This record gives sequence, C-alpha cells and structure tokens, in this order.
Amino acid sequence: MSQPDGTIRLLINCPDARGIIATVANFVASHNGNILDADQHTDPHTCEFFMRLEIDPDGFDLSRERFADAWAEVANRYAMTWKLHWSGETKRMAIFVSREDHCLHDLLWRWRTRELRTELPLVISNHDDLRSLVESCGVRFEHVPNTPENREQAEAMMRSILADAYVDLIVLARYMQVLSLAFVASYPRQIINIHHSFLPAFAGSRPYHQAFERGVKIIGATSHYVTEDLDSGPIIAQSTIPVDHRDTIEDMIRKGRDLERLVLARAVRLHIEDRILVSKNKTVVFE
Amino acid sequence: MSQPDGTIRLLINCPDARGIIATVANFVASHNGNILDADQHTDPHTCEFFMRLEIDPDGFDLSRERFADAWAEVANRYAMTWKLHWSGETKRMAIFVSREDHCLHDLLWRWRTRELRTELPLVISNHDDLRSLVESCGVRFEHVPNTPENREQAEAMMRSILADAYVDLIVLARYMQVLSLAFVASYPRQIINIHHSFLPAFAGSRPYHQAFERGVKIIGATSHYVTEDLDSGPIIAQSTIPVDHRDTIEDMIRKGRDLERLVLARAVRLHIEDRILVSKNKTVVFE
Amino acid sequence: MSQPDGTIRLLINCPDARGIIATVANFVASHNGNILDADQHTDPHTCEFFMRLEIDPDGFDLSRERFADAWAEVANRYAMTWKLHWSGETKRMAIFVSREDHCLHDLLWRWRTRELRTELPLVISNHDDLRSLVESCGVRFEHVPNTPENREQAEAMMRSILADAYVDLIVLARYMQVLSLAFVASYPRQIINIHHSFLPAFAGSRPYHQAFERGVKIIGATSHYVTEDLDSGPIIAQSTIPVDHRDTIEDMIRKGRDLERLVLARAVRLHIEDRILVSKNKTVVFE
Amino acid sequence: MSQPDGTIRLLINCPDARGIIATVANFVASHNGNILDADQHTDPHTCEFFMRLEIDPDGFDLSRERFADAWAEVANRYAMTWKLHWSGETKRMAIFVSREDHCLHDLLWRWRTRELRTELPLVISNHDDLRSLVESCGVRFEHVPNTPENREQAEAMMRSILADAYVDLIVLARYMQVLSLAFVASYPRQIINIHHSFLPAFAGSRPYHQAFERGVKIIGATSHYVTEDLDSGPIIAQSTIPVDHRDTIEDMIRKGRDLERLVLARAVRLHIEDRILVSKNKTVVFE
Repeated sequence: MSQPDGTIRLLINCPDARGIIATVANFVASHNGNILDADQHTDPHTCEFFMRLEIDPDGFDLSRERFADAWAEVANRYAMTWKLHWSGETKRMAIFVSREDHCLHDLLWRWRTRELRTELPLVISNHDDLRSLVESCGVRFEHVPNTPENREQAEAMMRSILADAYVDLIVLARYMQVLSLAFVASYPRQIINIHHSFLPAFAGSRPYHQAFERGVKIIGATSHYVTEDLDSGPIIAQSTIPVDHRDTIEDMIRKGRDLERLVLARAVRLHIEDRILVSKNKTVVFE
Repeated sequence: MSQPDGTIRLLINCPDARGIIATVANFVASHNGNILDADQHTDPHTCEFFMRLEIDPDGFDLSRERFADAWAEVANRYAMTWKLHWSGETKRMAIFVSREDHCLHDLLWRWRTRELRTELPLVISNHDDLRSLVESCGVRFEHVPNTPENREQAEAMMRSILADAYVDLIVLARYMQVLSLAFVASYPRQIINIHHSFLPAFAGSRPYHQAFERGVKIIGATSHYVTEDLDSGPIIAQSTIPVDHRDTIEDMIRKGRDLERLVLARAVRLHIEDRILVSKNKTVVFE
Repeated sequence: MSQPDGTIRLLINCPDARGIIATVANFVASHNGNILDADQHTDPHTCEFFMRLEIDPDGFDLSRERFADAWAEVANRYAMTWKLHWSGETKRMAIFVSREDHCLHDLLWRWRTRELRTELPLVISNHDDLRSLVESCGVRFEHVPNTPENREQAEAMMRSILADAYVDLIVLARYMQVLSLAFVASYPRQIINIHHSFLPAFAGSRPYHQAFERGVKIIGATSHYVTEDLDSGPIIAQSTIPVDHRDTIEDMIRKGRDLERLVLARAVRLHIEDRILVSKNKTVVFE
Repeated sequence: MSQPDGTIRLLINCPDARGIIATVANFVASHNGNILDADQHTDPHTCEFFMRLEIDPDGFDLSRERFADAWAEVANRYAMTWKLHWSGETKRMAIFVSREDHCLHDLLWRWRTRELRTELPLVISNHDDLRSLVESCGVRFEHVPNTPENREQAEAMMRSILADAYVDLIVLARYMQVLSLAFVASYPRQIINIHHSFLPAFAGSRPYHQAFERGVKIIGATSHYVTEDLDSGPIIAQSTIPVDHRDTIEDMIRKGRDLERLVLARAVRLHIEDRILVSKNKTVVFE
C-alpha cells in the first residue's frame, strides 16, 4: 500500500469467464513481470469480473508504448474495459473550494507531506478568501466567480484553466456551486465530491440542519464521483459518528468537519492509487 | 446505571425558567430524599427544559400515593409534564415478532439473564413458527394471524390480550405487519420498533436490498418509537457498520442482524430505565 | 462470501518468488477449474507469500484423492506449505464453556441458523450449569470437572471425547480453566479463545477490573489462537467500544458481553471458512 | 456546548453527602444565577461526588472577587475541592513539538478557526524545523534544544518562557523529549500528552512498531495528563481503528496520524472547556 506511483497498475472490467486470472497472470509472466499485488472480484448478480494488478516495473519487458498492442489480444478475447497506470506517472489534481477551508486545509497538508502522491497545479475558488492559504503553500490560486447567472462563462474559463494545467482529477472540497451537466460530463469519474451526510439521507442543501430537524443519533459524510444526478453518483467512501440531544447544529458542523476531512482524503487516496473501479452506479474498491 | 428498578425516577419536561433545578433539588431535600443521579438539558432552540432524577427511596418521606399531591405545586408553577417511576415497579413488555428470530432470541436472553429488568408476560406473532423457542423460556406465546384483510379483528384480539396482561411496552422485534393508526395511537411512546437501515435512508420495505442497489459503504439499524408515520417516529438509537463491494445482500442481512440486535436491545434498555424523554419528533436520552 | 462449504479452498504459504500466481492459476485452469475468488498477500518484511483460492468444484477434473499428487510438483517447486478444504467437507467444532453463557448462547444460535456452517458434536464444561441449554438444542453436553488438581485426568478424558467425536476445532467460549501446554500443543491452530480485553493490554484474569482500575476510555475483546503463551497467541479479531466514568465494572461486563460475542463469532466464522493463515505469531486474514 | 468562554463554570469534588445538589443549586439561585448546565456523578466505589455547573453571568450578583468568600461556607461544609472559571477568561496554551507536524498543524488550524477558544502565546520545539509553519500563523516560536545532557538548562529556560507568557496549559503535540519529574510536578494537570497507542498497551517508544510486531488488529491513540509515571497519567480520551495484515508500519503511522490528531484535539477541547475532573489516576469527563 505504500508505493502509490512506483508500480504499473492495470484495472480490468469484463464479463466473467473461466480462466481470466490464469490468462492475465500468464501474460504478465510471459513478459517477465512480477505481480506484486492482485485483487479480483466477481459480482454474483451481474456476473461482471473486476481485477486490479500491481506489477513490478523491474524486469517487465514491455514499455508503456508497446503495452497496448501486446495486451490487445487478451483484452479483446474477454471484452475487457481496462485502464493502465504506468510507474512514475502522477495524477494532476485541482481542488475546487468555496469558503469553508477544512477540507482544503487537510488536502494541502496531505499533499505537502506526500501522503497524497499527486501533482497539485492549482486551486480554483468562487471566492477570493482562501488565496493566501493556498499561495503560502506555493500553489496557484484562481478566483473564478461562479453564479447561476454567469455559469456558462465561468465554466468555460475553468475548463480552459484545467486544460492548460493538464488536470485529470477535480476534487470538490466543499465547493458550494452546482456544476452544469455539460461540465460534469466532460470529466467522467474524474470529479470527486464530499457531501456532509450519510447519503442517500439528507441529499441537497444544509444536511446538518436536516439531520438536526430529524433528530438522528448519527451524522455522516459521503465521498462520491460526481455524475449528472446531484449527490447520486457512485459512492467511494462513507463514515458516521454518534451525536445526541446535546449536539446543536453548530456541534454537528464541528464534528462533521473532522469526518468530512477523513472521508474525502480517503476517497482521493483511493482514486490516486487506482484502487476504484466503477460499474453502473457502484464502486468496487480494492484496498 | 446498574439499578434499573431500585430507585425512584422522575422525568420532567417544561419551558425553561430560572431556578428549576434549585426548586426541584429543594423539593427532594425537603422530603429527606437523596439525589443519586440528575441529568438535565435545555434545548437552545425551543427553550424547553428536560430533567431526569434518580432518588434513593431510603429515607424519602413521600409514598407513591402522596407524591402527586406534594409535587403538584412545583409542577404547576413551571407547567411541567412529568412522569414518575417508583422503586420496585417493573415494566411489562410484550414482544411482537414474525419469522425472523434474531431480535427475539436476543431479547429473551437479555431478559432471562436480568440484563433487561422487565416482566415479559407474552410474545405475539402472526406466525406459529417461534412458539417452541418462546415457550421453552417459560413465556406465553400467542399466535394472532394478522393480514391486511383481517387487520381489524387481529388488532382487537391483540388489544384484549395486551390489556389482560397489563402490558405497557410493545417491542416490534422484526414484526412484519403494519399496525393501524388507531392501534398505534392507543400506545403512545409505548411501541418500539427496529428498522434495518440508518433512517431516514431506506425507509419502507427491503432496506438491505435498497442499500445494495444504491451501493452504500455502510449499513445501519435504527430503533424508534412508532407513530402514525411509518418509520418516522422519534429515533432512540442508531448505529452503522462498514460494508464493501464483496458484501452480497445475504452478507448485509447477516451483518445487519448483529447490528439490529444491539440497537434494539439498547433502545429497550433505555426505555425500561426511563432514560428517554420525547419532545415533538425527537428524543432526549439521558445516559 | 456466502458459500462456506460449497467450494474447494486452497491455502498457500511460501517464500515469495516470481510467477507463483501464474503457476497456480495455470494449474487450476489446466484441470478445467474456475477460480471463484483469489486473494494473495506478500509480507514486505519477511518476503513470505500467502494465497487463498476458492475453486468451483463444477468441472474441476481432479478428485480430492488425486489432488495431492497432481499438486506436488508446484508445491515442491515453491516450497509451499498448503492446506486443502474440499467442497462438501464440514469442520467439527466443540465448544468449551464454564458458567458465563453469552458466547455459548450466541454460537449455538448462529450454528442453528446455519450462519456458522459447522458440525457441533458436543459442548464440554467444567460445570454442569449449562447442560439444559445445550441439550435443548439437541447437542451433547459433557460435564468434565477440571481443576488444577485433576487437570491431567480431566484433559485425558477430554482428549478421548474429542477424538471419538472427530473434533477439529475447539472454541473456548469463556472457558475459565487453563489448558496444559501438552493439551494445547495437540491442537495447533485448532483452539480459538476469546479474551475480554484489547490485548496485549489487560492479559490474565479479570480484565474488566483491570480496565476499571486504570481508568481507560475504551474496553475491548480479542479472539486468538491458543498457544503455549497465555493470551499471546496469533490474534484473529479485535474490537473496542467506548466507556466513560459512569460505567461501573458491571456496566463494562455487560457492554463487553456484546463485544465478546461478536468478536468470537467473527473469528470462528473466519476459521470455518478457511480465511486465516498463520505465520509465526501473526495472522493473515483473507476476507 | 458552544459557549466555551461565555459562562461561569464551577467544578466541584467532595465526599458524597445528602443534599449537595440542593445546596449548590440554592446558592446559585440565592445570587440570582441561572444554571445553564449541570452534570454530576457519584463514584459508587469511592463515594466521591463530582459536579460541573455552567452559570449564566447575566444577572448573577457575585463578582469574581467576591465569589470565594460567599462560596466558602458551602465549600467548607462539604469539604469540597473546587475550581472556578469566570466568563470571559481564556486559557493560555503552549504547544511543545518536535519534528512530526500533524498534531501541531491540526491544533493551529483549530485555534485559528476558533474551534479551540484559547490563547496561543507560543510554540516550543527542540528542533527549528517547524518555525516557519508556526510563525506564518502569527505565533511566536521558541527553539529550545533539549537533550538528556542539557535537560536542566533547557527546562529552566522553558519555565522562564512559560512564566513570562502566563501559560497555564502545555500540550505535548508529539514532543519526543522526556520531561523531568520536577518539571512535570510544576504543572499539575496542566500538561496534556498524546501517546500513539491504546494505553496501557504499547507504552514507551515506537508503539506502532510494537503493534506491528504483536500483530494486533486495531491501533489506537490515547491522550492523558502527564504525571511522574511515563504514559501512565489519567486518561482523557482514547480511540482505535482497525488494521489488518496488509498494513505496513508506514500504513499504521499514516492511519495513526489521523487518530492522534482527533484524540488530542478532543482532549484539549475538553480541558479548555473545563469538562475534566481528576480523582487519583482517573478522569471524570462531563460532556
């Protein structure tokens, strides 16, 4: 679990069939590769097969360029969807944030200490409040005002910034603006959000207020990929903590901040280490 | 926490005001009572005051009969709603069950070991399957078939059985029939249910199937008082545990059984020990 | 996870080497086997390799009798220690108990509902108290008094009973007598104990009293294989729950009972499903 | 729970006796005070009584200066040990740190956002590494080298710095030097430490290495007051999280950082809000 970028990682998704594991393992062995870690899962309902391989780059006789050609025969035989992460490659993350800084702060700290092994070319916010925090970490800060009125313009500007910075992962660290369907569709399974409730309960706005009204005895946080349906994308990580009658909404918000930070950081780490496969609206998370 | 029936317990609910605690403590002291435990809570939003007192019966110079008269002046001054449990009194619980036996089994065991200090005059079921389990514990078992068609008759019979047995607490230990509004209204805050999800998510039927479909990473159980709104009564206790992609619906059901048992037993214990006050649709639980 | 006895299960432990996974997967494929589940782990410190395979018996062309011969070449090449569980085989568990019945009760229930897929030929106790509980489940109960004075005799009797019943798993469900080194040595990794603390803290007797004295804010339970060193065998499962200053020793004991039941049941299930490998004093648990 | 410094807080500890609550409540009422929150606890073993009161300063007719005189009669009658926190007073915290920055970082963030309502006049470290982090928050940083050889000198310097800054709370946020008995004795119940294990297990150095060696399935963190006995002071807060065979020591350290931050922040908050009473080696924590 401690070499997020030093290995070759192969994610596979296909209809279940006899002999897939042997075929894949043979392919690796035939190219003098050593499998450092292998996880697989077969969904008994849908008969889908999922696999994640970590291969030692030492001795492996395929280059990144030649991999696809060599692999094509296996992939076609089993009708595989697959994704490759080559050793040494690093994802490029942008953080979107509004005014609440706890998730941003936590992600910055994990990024600076290299717990999260990713590039962080920039932070985008619809407010200017957190500029100095971000810039003090040596990270570029872009203030892009974003309201229902100027959404189209704002998103065009953000797309351009993201493209120029080669961003391939957007983390919504309590970003309080809704993104358009078109924007979301441009970054499939590349946008991770933190919602401050145990979804599907308390979707939408002000979930701690909803939780307080309902009188629940637990509160939660949920991290998920963003899809067209608000707060309904594939769930990556979730957690809850107890509350009781003494907890005001302010107490829930305070306790929830700790939960949100941990749940979001966990989801981002799982994504960065290529541990997540998505099928329909559910995730398979190989840890 | 270990003398559920050996103490006098007084539960108070009233608008907040200056001096309530002093007045109540003086009342007890003036009757030579010793306060063993006192909990209070003021809701900062509604300005309601809640209090729970445990009084040592040794030396207390009021009898159960004379208490109400003596207390009336205080209660009226502060417009209190109050409830009294006298030392030595024991609640009389009936368990309603269908075919799933895990909660029943657990409650029977806790009752037999005196962890739950309550009388258990009878168990009612809409099936006859669990008769021998119940009778082997020396508890009366009543098979009352209950379907949408014969609901009225069935409930009339159950009311009569419950009245004859002086039942004051009904525990729905995975009882799969809906109770009529009229039935529920006859036992206000006297019916405790276990729902196998973290409410308000996955209310209604087959919550583990709903959870599986949604792809959540936690499952939960919720125990609540039954009110006219299905699965929407005041929540007493809630808990969750992690699940992942390897968990089938059957695994969720298996893991959930352990959670349901613990959450229901906890709610029943809190009720039996008079630790729960209800205000509108929320509980104050003094532990 | 839901077919504990319907599959062929192969557990492997050997020094790490290139190509093991491919070799094993090829072996299975070459005998027309389908791998239903495969887990592996390499310890980065000791360079030991661990693997667990579940193979579909349908179509697999080796019988239990011919397996060892066919497999010998692979096993020898990699210096494997291995264990085979054939589909349809069922473990035979004996429960040892003293007077506390909560773990026994729980195991009996899980066994009766087939959550634990094991034979249960008998329960042995050093007291006669729990005879009727056990016999009412249709299980044989043997009262074998066991004191430091008659240990040798008692253990000889127990060995004979266990051998006659073909027992291959002994579960100490709060059995309060110490077993001799010789007895323990006769059942390597076949005796599972529940200790009522988070080991290594509070080993030895009366752990809740120790916990109360120390003023800890959590209590725990630990299930482990029994070895020559008391309370020091390989840990299979552990869990904790919060306590606070209001919890008396009796409260800790009550709360702890729920924890002990769950932790022990989990360890027994993992063992029965052949999910545990042991290396030196640590376990690898494939779930 | 949300007004850490706006209320008058009174902590009481005395032998249990009849009528204490009434006496105390009367005292407050007789000075026109309103009790906002009252918690009490009687230890059934030692017959000690503990109480925490929050009094609304509005209308209370005693000043801080006159309180002690007025209160003396009650305090003497019951042989009370008591502590007073007046509304508007703020504790003055110093953080001691070495090289690991996660707890420091977290405390700084909570202090800046006013989640922790305390003054933070300075941070002391035996290394200079974290100077810029601290100073960028506008907090004074003092580098005081501290080794077994120069301990006496170093501690003299630290005492002088602390005295000049009127510090009344020292938080050891992974400070890796042992403090002398004399130093510890000068700040009774004013030094809070975080130890990275579930004490009493794995006291001393390198607890994650100890945990890895033992093969435990949980790791933990413990926050406690520092006393003469290393890692043996009264425990304020403790928590654990699961680990398994895939977790290397590095993974444990990573997971543990999150736990340590939360457990230490919780202990500091409880202290700042005067929620902790200590008796012998145990804490009573009123939340």
